[in-house]
Formats: sequence, C-alpha cells, structure tokens
Amino acid sequence: MKLAELSESIATQGFPNTVDGDPDLQIHTVNTLGGARAGEISFLSNPKYRQQLQSTQASAVIITPEEVLPDHLSGLRSNDPYAAMTAAMIAIHGHRRHPAWGVHRQAVIAGSAKVGANPNIGPHTTICEQVVIGANVTMYPGCFIGDHVQIGDDVVLYPNVVVYDHTRIGDRVTVHANTVAGGDGLGYAPVNGKWLKIPQAGRTVIEDDVEIGVCCALERATLGETRIGRGSKLSDLVVIGHGTQVGESCMFVAQVGVAGSVNIGDRVTLGGQAGISGHLSIGDDALVGPKSAVWSDVEANAQYQGTPPATHGYEFRRQAASFRRLPQFGKRLRALERKLAQLRRQLGVDDE
Amino acid sequence: MKLAELSESIATQGFPNTVDGDPDLQIHTVNTLGGARAGEISFLSNPKYRQQLQSTQASAVIITPEEVLPDHLSGLRSNDPYAAMTAAMIAIHGHRRHPAWGVHRQAVIAGSAKVGANPNIGPHTTICEQVVIGANVTMYPGCFIGDHVQIGDDVVLYPNVVVYDHTRIGDRVTVHANTVAGGDGLGYAPVNGKWLKIPQAGRTVIEDDVEIGVCCALERATLGETRIGRGSKLSDLVVIGHGTQVGESCMFVAQVGVAGSVNIGDRVTLGGQAGISGHLSIGDDALVGPKSAVWSDVEANAQYQGTPPATHGYEFRRQAASFRRLPQFGKRLRALERKLAQLRRQLGVDDE
Amino acid sequence: MKLAELSESIATQGFPNTVDGDPDLQIHTVNTLGGARAGEISFLSNPKYRQQLQSTQASAVIITPEEVLPDHLSGLRSNDPYAAMTAAMIAIHGHRRHPAWGVHRQAVIAGSAKVGANPNIGPHTTICEQVVIGANVTMYPGCFIGDHVQIGDDVVLYPNVVVYDHTRIGDRVTVHANTVAGGDGLGYAPVNGKWLKIPQAGRTVIEDDVEIGVCCALERATLGETRIGRGSKLSDLVVIGHGTQVGESCMFVAQVGVAGSVNIGDRVTLGGQAGISGHLSIGDDALVGPKSAVWSDVEANAQYQGTPPATHGYEFRRQAASFRRLPQFGKRLRALERKLAQLRRQLGVDDE
Repeated sequence: MKLAELSESIATQGFPNTVDGDPDLQIHTVNTLGGARAGEISFLSNPKYRQQLQSTQASAVIITPEEVLPDHLSGLRSNDPYAAMTAAMIAIHGHRRHPAWGVHRQAVIAGSAKVGANPNIGPHTTICEQVVIGANVTMYPGCFIGDHVQIGDDVVLYPNVVVYDHTRIGDRVTVHANTVAGGDGLGYAPVNGKWLKIPQAGRTVIEDDVEIGVCCALERATLGETRIGRGSKLSDLVVIGHGTQVGESCMFVAQVGVAGSVNIGDRVTLGGQAGISGHLSIGDDALVGPKSAVWSDVEANAQYQGTPPATHGYEFRRQAASFRRLPQFGKRLRALERKLAQLRRQLGVDDE
Repeated sequence: MKLAELSESIATQGFPNTVDGDPDLQIHTVNTLGGARAGEISFLSNPKYRQQLQSTQASAVIITPEEVLPDHLSGLRSNDPYAAMTAAMIAIHGHRRHPAWGVHRQAVIAGSAKVGANPNIGPHTTICEQVVIGANVTMYPGCFIGDHVQIGDDVVLYPNVVVYDHTRIGDRVTVHANTVAGGDGLGYAPVNGKWLKIPQAGRTVIEDDVEIGVCCALERATLGETRIGRGSKLSDLVVIGHGTQVGESCMFVAQVGVAGSVNIGDRVTLGGQAGISGHLSIGDDALVGPKSAVWSDVEANAQYQGTPPATHGYEFRRQAASFRRLPQFGKRLRALERKLAQLRRQLGVDDE
Repeated sequence: MKLAELSESIATQGFPNTVDGDPDLQIHTVNTLGGARAGEISFLSNPKYRQQLQSTQASAVIITPEEVLPDHLSGLRSNDPYAAMTAAMIAIHGHRRHPAWGVHRQAVIAGSAKVGANPNIGPHTTICEQVVIGANVTMYPGCFIGDHVQIGDDVVLYPNVVVYDHTRIGDRVTVHANTVAGGDGLGYAPVNGKWLKIPQAGRTVIEDDVEIGVCCALERATLGETRIGRGSKLSDLVVIGHGTQVGESCMFVAQVGVAGSVNIGDRVTLGGQAGISGHLSIGDDALVGPKSAVWSDVEANAQYQGTPPATHGYEFRRQAASFRRLPQFGKRLRALERKLAQLRRQLGVDDE
C-alpha cells in the first residue's frame, strides 16, 4: 500500500492526517520505532521514545503536526498518532477473517430457536430452546447457547464459549474462546454445618460493543442482573461476581477478580490480577493498579495501588494500623532528634 | 404463590416458621431489603441492615421471632431467616431445569462404557472406554470423560467439562462449564538443565455433594489421590494442586490457588485470590482472607490475612523484620517523646 | 517388576545405578518415604527427610552411593535419586495411553488441511483451512485448530484446546485441556472516550518440548510473535501477554500472569500467582516467589519476592517510602533512646 493510500484510508476511518514526504512509498506493515524495518511505518505517541525517531529503521512514521521529522523519514501527521496507527493497522491487516460455515450440518439447533439473517454457525455447536439470535452472528465450533438466551447482531463467539440459560448479549459483542457467561455465583446458606445452594435465579447481561477475553467467568446474579456495560473490554481469565454492575468503557486486565454486588462506574481501569471485595463502589474513571486488593470504596478519578502486608489475626491489625502511621513516625523521629540535639546544645552536653 | 403457601413450602424443606400478617398476600420473588418492590419478600439476616426494614418496598419479610415487624409489612418468622430465604428461593424459582437430551445421537460413547438409568447426555460429548456412570446423570454438550472414569448418581456436568482418565466423581456432584478435573500436576525432574516429566500416575477424587465453578483445574496426584471432600464448594477459576487434600464443607472463593500436597481440614474458607503454598496444613474452620498468601501452617479456627510487602532479597528480610516491630516502634516513640518533654520541663528549657 | 529389572530400566533411561540388596524383590509402585508400603520403592532426595529412612514401610529405596542403607531395606544407588525415581515412575507406570481414534468420522477437517502420518484425531474436533499438522499427533475431542496453524510432530492436544489462526506449535508439545493459544491481546486505542480495537496481527509460537497446563491463555502478538521457548513448562491458568518472549526451560507455576512485551530469559521460575508488569526484562535463572508482583527488571540469577503494601494514591507513596526506611527508623530510635538515657544520667535526672 502506498503512503498516500494509507493516509486516505486512515482519514476515511475518521482520523484526518497529512502526508509529509514521499506519497508513493510502499508500506507493508506497522511496527514499533525499535522494531520497524524498511517498508514499515512506525509512530511516535509516547514522548519518552522521541530519541528513537533518529535511529528507527522504519521508512515512515506517524507523528503530531508539531513534531520534527528526521530527514531520512517520510511521515503522516495526525493530532492522535496512536489512533492513526490503529487505523493504519486496520487498513493494512484488517480484522480477523472468520471461516465461513453457514449453518454447519453438525450444529445442533433446537426447533424453537430463532436465528437471524446471514448466520455463520460452526460444527459441534449447540443452540437450545427459545434462543433468539440476531443477524450476522458468527459462532465458532463448540459453543453452547442455553435455553432462552438472547444474542444481538454482529456478535462473534469464539470456540467453546458457553452461554448459560437466560443470558442476554447485545450487538457487536465479541467473546473469546472458552469463556463462560451466566454460570452460577457462589451462593449457599449454612445449615447445620453444610451448604444449602441458593438458586441463582438472575441473569448475566453483556451490553453492546463489549469484548471479553478467553477463559473468563461472568457469573449470573442471584436475583436481577450482573451487567457488563457498553463498550467495556475485559482481558483473559477475568471473574465477575454475581450481581456486580460494570459500567461503560471500562478496561480490566487479565486475571482481575471482582466479587459479587460490586458497583463499578464508567471508564474504570483495573490492572492485572487486581481484586475487588464484595459490595463496594468504584467511581467513574478510577484506576486500580495491578495486583491491588481493594477493601473499601474507591472514589471517582482516584488512583489506588497495593495489598496489605502479611501476618496473623490481631497482630496484623496492629501492624497495619502502625503502617498507616509510618510517615508520621518519620516526622516524630525527626522532631525528637532535633529537640534532643537542641537540648544538648543548650545544656552544653557532649557525647560520652 | 400465597404467603401461607410459601410458609408451608419453607417448613417442608426443614425450616419451621410462622406467618405474621396476611396469609393470602401474593409473593412472586425474593429480593434484598433495598431492592425489593411490592409483591416481593425480603429478609433480615444481618443486623446492620435493620434500619432498611422501615424503608423497604417489599410486601413481606423473613425475620426472627424476636424482631419487631413494621406495621406496613407482613412477615414470616423463622429462627434462621437466611436459610428460610434460601428455601423461599427454591420454592419460588426452583433450581435450573436442564434440557432433555436422553442420549443424543451426536454423543460418542465407547462400547465398554456403562451408563446408568435415566441418562441425559448432550450432543458433542465423548465418553471413553471402561467408564462407569450412575443414574440420573446430566452431561451437557462438549463434555469429555476419559478412560476408566467413575461417576456417581445425580451428577450434573455443564458444557465442555473435561474429566481426565481414572478420575472418580461421587453422587450429587455439580461441575460447571469448562472446568477440568484430573489434569496433570506440574511435576518434572531437572536433568542436565532440562525438565524430565514425572508421570502423574495418581487420580482426582471428587466426593459427594461437591459443587465446582467454571474454568477450574483440579490436578490429579502424582501418586495416590487429590481429594475434594464431601460437600465442599469451589467457585470459578480455582486451582487445586496435585496430591492436595481438601476436607468437607469447605468454601473456596474465585481464583483461589492451592499448591500441591496441601492438607486442608473441614469447613475451611479461602477468600478470593488467596494462595496456599505447597506441603502446608490448614486446620478445620480456618478462615483465610481474600488475596492472602499463606506461607506456613494455619491452625484450626485461626483467621489469617495478608501478603508480604515487596522488595528484593536481603533488604526485604530486614524490612519485614522491622515491620513486625512496628507497633513496638510506636510505643518507643511515645516513651521517648514523653521522657524528653518531662526532662525539658524539669530543666525549665523552652523551645528555641 | 523385580528390583533388578527396575534397575536396568532406569539405567536404560540414562541414569546409571546399582542394586544394593535383594534383586528379586517385587516392586509395584513408587511412593514417598512416609506413604510407601510393602512392595513399593521410595527415594531420599531431600536430606531433611533422612530420618524417615528408618521408619519407612517401603521395601526398597533409591539413595545416593554415600547414603547408609537401613538393614530392613533394599536399595538402588544413583547419583541423582530424584531423576532415578522419575525413571522408576516411567518404568512402572509409563505415560498416559491415549484413546485411539484414527481420524474419527465426527472430526471436521478442511480440504486444504494437511495431516501427517499416523494421526489420532478425536470426535468433535475442527481443523480449518491451510492447517499443516505433523506425524503422530493426538488431538482429543473438542479441539479447534484455526486457519493456517502449523503443528509439528508428536504433539498432544487434550480436549477443548483452542488454537487461533496462524499459531505455530513445534514438535513434542503437550497442551492440556481448555487452554487457548493465540487469542487476541488487550489492545485498544482510546478515541473520544471509547476503545478502538487494534488488530492483533501477530501470532503465538510454542517451541519444541513445551508443556502447557489447563485453562491457560497464550495471547498472540499485536505484531510479530509471542513466544514460549523450547522446553518450558507452564502450569494451569497461566496468562502470557501479547508480544512476550519466554525463554527456554522456564517453569511457571499455576495462575502466573505475565503482561505484554515482557522479555523472560532461560530457566526462569515464576511462583504461583506471580505477576509481571509489561515491558520488563527477567534475566536467566531468576527466581520470582509465589504471589510476587514484579514492577521493575529482575537481573539474571536474582531472587525476588513480595508485593507492595496497600493504600491510596499519594499517601501510599509516602508510606512506601517510609517502609523502605524502616530498618533505619529502628536504628534512629535506638540512638535516640541511648542518647536520652545518657543525658539523663549526666544530668542526674530521675523518672518522675
């Protein structure tokens, strides 16, 4: 693809840009400044990599209008180089092209299920009673769709995705392989030293434009709904507990665990392996660092990081309380040292 | 369902109770005090929600015999409102009704396998040689049952459950979607800088009345058995290492990881994302908090919470040692401050 | 099997050894010193179990040439008892014998796929277009192999393994049930408060002799390759982020999470639930303890353990800084206490 053609495709996708250099340059992929070779286009989005502009082997770079373009490079200038790079990736590589199965004869589809226009349903899938599926849905092999599930248009379910009964999935949702939506939450009542199962009578709702990674568990609610809000993106091996509400455009990194009945706002980021205890609220735009344990509400726009130090029972609580006073300890130490030294000076006392 | 009918059903399930108010009240679901609307029954189990009794929109509540019932509500009085609420859930919603497959013609069942009375085996399942399956077993699509597996009566395996060869599953066991029982443990001998695989020649045993969540890994033992004790409940994405013994009526929250050769007693609770190192013992009724890292044995009835603070090697050990002395630091600081102030008073010294 | 026959088999596998005692002794399995009974062989590899040599009920033990053999036991003497024990396990139990499916008629294989000699492909598998598979490959039921995947010789894929398009798998690779190789990484560009998906145009490469546990996620690279190096062994529920390079002969315990673009050397051990942040380097032979959070590069041969203590934002940074000064706090406290006492002695001041 010529640089001028790439520029046009990026603009068509909504990211205006101008060519600075050779419009006929052939570009065949996108790469980082450090990894790119001749014939590849790179980008400068994070200023900390600016010095790599001089040394990159790329043939072209995507930069802001203000950036100085080295002599040996051609460029595309855009106000948002990272978005323009994404558009370049889409222009050159496109998104995954799915196998075309139509409705494979080894799919098992209940008579009462309704499948919309242009279905692409692989072998070894099972679609149960009263299911309603929209148009242009791709379902890879091995998927299971339980009774009364509703699925919107333009949905992609990768292999072995399991959707329990009564789950609702919106439009343009992508669920990656071996993820389970709508499984039971951990709900039991203690009765005479044993556990009596509480029916998990609610459902899981996945709103439009959500993407879920592989091997995740999105538990159904005990009552009402567990909800993954519009446009949110979850990575792999993420667990969402029963009754939890996830807002819009959130991003959860791999192995995040959110307990039940948590209320998460919009645009919340949870770092990898972060854990959120039950019944908490996490405000809009909050950022929880990787491996953090969240024990209390997090306010909107707050940044939270950390886990409690280890020890046993009561002793732990005392140490944790002391830990919170640590900065104060330092101040008190300094004050003591200063006062003692001053006192010794006043008294004319020397060290022994 | 009328309140009087609900009362009777709850009593029949083993939870005696009395109607206080209108026996003909129509109840159609259960809900929390905060979430309930007219026509719904709620419950007060945790005293911290008592004030919500006044404001709830529920039509009825399940309370203890001693509780004061607000004028606008009808009630069911039971000694165990939480258990009675569970029985109400079962009375109104029941447990999941499975699709009825009989033995689906797209199931592949080896000639030597023995399947008990009233089977319900979905399409795309595979049952290998010498398998023995009890009566009233439901196996959802995509399950795999390896050679020589034994499965008891009234078992439910949700879609894509994988049971490796020689695993034993008791009666009334439920395993949720995409969980794997009997996979190999991480066993290798180091030989000349490479890893030589140790055959994992043991098995996994899941005793009666166990329920396992989605995407769990219950590793087989190298020798002997990995065991999940009777009535224990595991949530999603839980890993149980090879040779580990889990006692009866335990509850493990999502993403718990237990290493190999651990000995866990009865009624042990492990919070979400907790990790237990290998070869440890956890006593009966112990409670390990969420995200805890357990490095040494935990005694019966103990409560444990926490993870070690981060740093490298030797420096870490010094800091950790100091951390344990933190409460003592506080005391010593206070003593110093007191003594210095007293000294200054005695000397009549003023601040500079 | 007679002890002499076992000795010979172990030697044939590359571990020279000598019989000390009764060569005709019948041995039917291997067990720990504490667990073994008559007719079983045990081993002493870790000196801390030496006293169990006296009390073991085993009939024979594998020991070093220098070890004293109790009178009641026969023995095999080897320079590496743990490796010899492994060879004994292989001699007696062998590795898993897979069901024999040939190419099952309920496998769905695209016309353009090339399958090597001696295939063993179970029912309910799907092999897509342009796939190339080597000789002696076993593929359990429910596996999915996407377009253009390449798989070497002597590979075993357990049930429901999903291999996304363009993934490459070497020779003698084993992947356990419900693991996913080549799924998309978490790559999105923020555009007007929403997430624009970055095509994940790279691939995942699994080199020769790798073994992967159950329910793992090995993400494909955005560009280029995610790589699991030759001979590395990953346990269950492990996540490897997009673009990450794992060296040779590494061992990752269950629930490890490695973010994207990480560079991991050879023979690196990551303990259970450890997490590695993105774009870091972990040197050869490094050892990261269980549940550790790694925030910065780890040097070759280093040992790292720990996670940061919990608190919010700025306050956290102050506390963390104080935490690093804790050993120093202790010193300063002691100095103050000493100086104050000395001052009081010099002044002749008594306690109030």
